[in-house]
Amino acid sequence: MAKTQYDVVGIGNAIVDVIANADDGFLTELGVEKGAMTLIDAGEAAQLYAKMPAAIEMSGGSCANTIAGLASLGGQGAFIGKVKKDQLGDVFTHDIRALGVVFDTPSTLDGPATARCLILVTPDAQRTMNTYLGACTSLGPDDVDPQIIGASAITYLEGYLWDPPQAKEAFVKAATIAQEAGRQVALTLSDSFCVDRHRDDFRDLVSRKVDILFANEAEIMSLYQVDSFDEALQIVRQECSITALTRSGAGSVIIGGDEVHVIDAVPTKVVDTTGAGDLYAAGFLYGLTRGVDLMTAGRMASVAAAEAISHYGPRPQTSLKALVASHGL
Amino acid sequence: MAKTQYDVVGIGNAIVDVIANADDGFLTELGVEKGAMTLIDAGEAAQLYAKMPAAIEMSGGSCANTIAGLASLGGQGAFIGKVKKDQLGDVFTHDIRALGVVFDTPSTLDGPATARCLILVTPDAQRTMNTYLGACTSLGPDDVDPQIIGASAITYLEGYLWDPPQAKEAFVKAATIAQEAGRQVALTLSDSFCVDRHRDDFRDLVSRKVDILFANEAEIMSLYQVDSFDEALQIVRQECSITALTRSGAGSVIIGGDEVHVIDAVPTKVVDTTGAGDLYAAGFLYGLTRGVDLMTAGRMASVAAAEAISHYGPRPQTSLKALVASHGL
Repeated sequence: MAKTQYDVVGIGNAIVDVIANADDGFLTELGVEKGAMTLIDAGEAAQLYAKMPAAIEMSGGSCANTIAGLASLGGQGAFIGKVKKDQLGDVFTHDIRALGVVFDTPSTLDGPATARCLILVTPDAQRTMNTYLGACTSLGPDDVDPQIIGASAITYLEGYLWDPPQAKEAFVKAATIAQEAGRQVALTLSDSFCVDRHRDDFRDLVSRKVDILFANEAEIMSLYQVDSFDEALQIVRQECSITALTRSGAGSVIIGGDEVHVIDAVPTKVVDTTGAGDLYAAGFLYGLTRGVDLMTAGRMASVAAAEAISHYGPRPQTSLKALVASHGL
Repeated sequence: MAKTQYDVVGIGNAIVDVIANADDGFLTELGVEKGAMTLIDAGEAAQLYAKMPAAIEMSGGSCANTIAGLASLGGQGAFIGKVKKDQLGDVFTHDIRALGVVFDTPSTLDGPATARCLILVTPDAQRTMNTYLGACTSLGPDDVDPQIIGASAITYLEGYLWDPPQAKEAFVKAATIAQEAGRQVALTLSDSFCVDRHRDDFRDLVSRKVDILFANEAEIMSLYQVDSFDEALQIVRQECSITALTRSGAGSVIIGGDEVHVIDAVPTKVVDTTGAGDLYAAGFLYGLTRGVDLMTAGRMASVAAAEAISHYGPRPQTSLKALVASHGL
């Protein structure tokens, strides 16, 4: 097999986050599901933004956050996603390239603006996301560069990509190329409501194309429509080579064949949970590409996730490489 | 005298900050003066941004930060400044209005983009600012609404306004209207290099039009071209009714007629000093408009400044009203 040029290539929605504090009453008033990712259109985005407090902007997007985290750990990443050539598109492009990530997907020149996610952080540090997909709806199979997929040890896909209609084709094309090239395919289920929208497709993907699966408790239970975490765990271990199931403050469970590891969360002051799962995936994938055992990869994942939740916004604000090293990993 | 509608109206450059970490070597490589504000053109901004690490965007602008801080303290503020109708202009407008600040200056529809300040934060938490003034250069005397100035207890001006050529006329017009209406005029000297550029004008303003002056140690020594803080202090106390001189970690000195108060800094973990002086001014002006004594206003200022430096970015990330109350003020 040819030498890999990238540790991980990610395909995902290219989004700028707009992050503000809010109380629970504001969520109730808006009628949005706390903790979930809700899709909104341009008009709804403008209306919600007008009601939101002063905010902070920074690059986001679940999969893009993971690739940014991988780069911060010292891994070589590539990203495929769609922005418009506008100010927020420039921000997204700058930030991911500044980390050394290869990002060459052509921007759109007209049509909807660069995607943004209006994130409300409640006093319990929980984040509630409202996403205007904008330019992401233009991502299609032509944006998937077979050379990059073939040259990446792992192709990482976010479940959210199933929402914009054409992106799903990009998703399937990439997974197929990766499989045929003898590379690994990783998937995050993204959000339990996203699983609700695309359950049959996700089940099919997980059983046929996915080598490494990330899900939180709600997502994996939704995927298999079971009432307990353990039931979901018993099903998924028959389906995937490697599964990492995250449980917020209760840590995570990693299953690979006969191996099962229960990993503690790394204690930290929790400011904003945005990006916790994304950086967990970054740490885990980085560990796998470095050939460490599953337990060590899980511990790296926990350290990276703890960094994400210690500040506003999903991207690391310190070198994850140095942080992981300081934990003796 | 007519009842005031606003506690403070600010006139300043309307800027979005782009904040990233950098080491001292990067500043040396760029050839920029550490701790200073350097003006850059569009081409230099693009070049610097391309070299910068991944960043966070949030509304900034020295005077605008002060008005935002005043609003967070519970004061009623208004702001006059110029953005373009673009994505960053929308961000600036949203953030200041979300705090309840009246901001009605018409946006430009063409010409240069909304101003941005590329801020490099070194490991010692010092910030070095590189400002592309963009749309701010269109601010002129027509943007100064005499009704708002006349209805504000204090008109607050930033020295940086002396940089864009037309803004200075707006500045003088506003100060004159405020004086004639029997209101107070406050000025911050902004930056010692800014004082170097406009020393004669600033001296003239301070002696003839300014009631309340804010300056840090370097700025006030530059204004009077003296070698010691105490010499500058002795000169300025003859010139202004009230002067607040900030000295970073060494606290501040407040002079009003025969009164001199030496106020301690409020201890905090220092992450990024961006906005320290801006929120100091917010706390002090808020105190004055509430009729508290100079010492209490100085303590409010120190609490607000400590909040600013405890996180990235210049705007408060918590309610300053609650914070000041928690200090028994």
